[in-house]
Amino acid sequence: MSVTAAQGFDAAGVTAGLKASGGLDLALVVNRGPLQNAAAVFTSNRSKANPIIWSQQVIADGTVSAIVLNSGGANCFTGAQGFQVTHATAEAVGEALGVGAGDVLVCSTGLIGDQLPLDKVLAGVASAAASLGDNGELASQAIMTTDSKPKRSVRQGTGGYTVGGMAKGAGMLAPGLATMLVVITTDAVLTSAELDIALRRATRVSFDRLDSDGCMSTNDQVSLLASGASGVEPQFDDFVATLTAVCLDLAEQLQGDAEGASHDIRIEVVGAESEDDAVEVGRSVARNNLFKAAVFGNDPNWGRVLAAIGTTDAAFDPYDVDVSMNGVRVCHQGAPDRPRSEVDITARRVDLLIDLRVGSATATILTNDLTHDYVHENSAYSS
Amino acid sequence: MSVTAAQGFDAAGVTAGLKASGGLDLALVVNRGPLQNAAAVFTSNRSKANPIIWSQQVIADGTVSAIVLNSGGANCFTGAQGFQVTHATAEAVGEALGVGAGDVLVCSTGLIGDQLPLDKVLAGVASAAASLGDNGELASQAIMTTDSKPKRSVRQGTGGYTVGGMAKGAGMLAPGLATMLVVITTDAVLTSAELDIALRRATRVSFDRLDSDGCMSTNDQVSLLASGASGVEPQFDDFVATLTAVCLDLAEQLQGDAEGASHDIRIEVVGAESEDDAVEVGRSVARNNLFKAAVFGNDPNWGRVLAAIGTTDAAFDPYDVDVSMNGVRVCHQGAPDRPRSEVDITARRVDLLIDLRVGSATATILTNDLTHDYVHENSAYSS
Repeated sequence: MSVTAAQGFDAAGVTAGLKASGGLDLALVVNRGPLQNAAAVFTSNRSKANPIIWSQQVIADGTVSAIVLNSGGANCFTGAQGFQVTHATAEAVGEALGVGAGDVLVCSTGLIGDQLPLDKVLAGVASAAASLGDNGELASQAIMTTDSKPKRSVRQGTGGYTVGGMAKGAGMLAPGLATMLVVITTDAVLTSAELDIALRRATRVSFDRLDSDGCMSTNDQVSLLASGASGVEPQFDDFVATLTAVCLDLAEQLQGDAEGASHDIRIEVVGAESEDDAVEVGRSVARNNLFKAAVFGNDPNWGRVLAAIGTTDAAFDPYDVDVSMNGVRVCHQGAPDRPRSEVDITARRVDLLIDLRVGSATATILTNDLTHDYVHENSAYSS
Repeated sequence: MSVTAAQGFDAAGVTAGLKASGGLDLALVVNRGPLQNAAAVFTSNRSKANPIIWSQQVIADGTVSAIVLNSGGANCFTGAQGFQVTHATAEAVGEALGVGAGDVLVCSTGLIGDQLPLDKVLAGVASAAASLGDNGELASQAIMTTDSKPKRSVRQGTGGYTVGGMAKGAGMLAPGLATMLVVITTDAVLTSAELDIALRRATRVSFDRLDSDGCMSTNDQVSLLASGASGVEPQFDDFVATLTAVCLDLAEQLQGDAEGASHDIRIEVVGAESEDDAVEVGRSVARNNLFKAAVFGNDPNWGRVLAAIGTTDAAFDPYDVDVSMNGVRVCHQGAPDRPRSEVDITARRVDLLIDLRVGSATATILTNDLTHDYVHENSAYSS
């Protein structure tokens, strides 16, 4: 399922030998049409990996026939040789499928600064092309790095079309897209321009509001491919809503599987003057190591919330802010309210509510706690 | 020594009973003159503690007779009652010393959101006033929180004047001043306006470039008191240099004692178009949890350096940047150079050199690694 839930798509997930573990590490998703419309959004990091540089050119005309993704290496800061590997990968996919290389998106994930072995990648492409079919599950497994499980989501839209997707990402989850590779497919009939608008609307309130560790990746890419195979021309707002539901579902799966995390923290900011303010305030808390370490220790340390939001430029008076944790208002107008001892944050899900009391705008940011395991996993990543 | 190294200053460090540990927790520093000129800089966090709000008023006229500091409670977000405690503390100091409360700076450090017990604070003030003398060492111990040792520094200036200081701070170390309380004294003859200029110059390149964990405190304060007791009117640049040396020495002591840290990381950015760019680039690395966790694991993961600096707006081309670690150039013009295996970062001190190759401006940022112990100490802080 996942990327093959919508009509008109085939997929494969194979072992190319890029991962030391020997697991699945190369995925291929093919759009059989009749349409081959597409949109994509990329990391806003200026340090972009070779597949990002390549894919930004591919998406320019809004036409995509296939997308090839590998784990086991980010192909980032690997020089001219690294770009050649990306180019040759797209060429090989194009040749195997009888399409142009310029219609093949490429995504890579793994360690920065190491070369990908081209021979293994090309053999993997051949193997994937030979095993295309209803293999959305295998594809979703092949893009995993430190993920403990694959992420998949499918939703039906009004009128009989389908949106399905897969995602990978467990660390370096920060805005401008959390670090992730995401492929979403649909059999709805939409132009590339419509897909682009819909994708930007959906990612803005889903992946862009997931901030696990404040670190922005060099390889983020979210691609949306439409085959039109259902023949359904959806009502546009219905499509955006269905697509957003898939993106939110995948974003929450990414949060739930973030490296080393022991709590999923939902930061809801209300009473803001603008949505931008609400996002800025939520992000400042999501990036505060002290608050996140306190949550790891099941300590409802609301003082660190106020210390974090005081670093922002959002409109509010620090001495008129309310803070609640799991429904208990621990701070009212910048002074202690209910005692910390009334708050139980031992469960994985923690709800933090910040009321800025100056307006009516809101935003929700998803983050995780800072744990021993996060430090451990990320200190050992490249070794 | 420390704050009592310069002529004209007395100090005390006593146990007021504010710390659960029962250790020294209240310090008093008195300027006996003949001058009582002063300057101070404060946290740029909009969420400011009561002693910050008070001290900003005190410093307005450039005259300070004494400074009282407590550990065991930040007196931040404690409402009107909390401000009353700060006010009453200054009143008590003024009364004991025969000076106006409006010439008494107040500093507090500890947990946010808890009330300080006024009776204990007042008894501590009385005890401190009764034990004033050459007690710079006791004073430096009384301001410690999670610090493992006191921080003191003394330098002699040309012509025979002295600058001495003490500092506390081990966590929440971030720009706009690392989280810290610092008191610096001098017996040089300087006006309050001169002290203000000198202090801003010195802190800009010392405390403001220490970024241990990206978290900004609500209680930061660096105060500089001049007694003029040496009778020496220093050459101004010599005074700035001497003051800067004291500030840098204290900043490096803060770095060396940062909560849970196992590495002191010196990030030197060269080849920048402007100093602001160099600072921005250095800070982006200092705040990157993934890079800091890698250093904890003795892993010279330069890809994370490039991923971090790509999030900045500084002038540079990510594919023309050089990165060296402990003298080994691991990345040249955005591509792999010497192998990671040649880099040994097992020692506490790690030198990271980033050459942006676009100009001649430089800046150095001091930070620490992200460790199990950092997470542990900060998850247990309030419990």
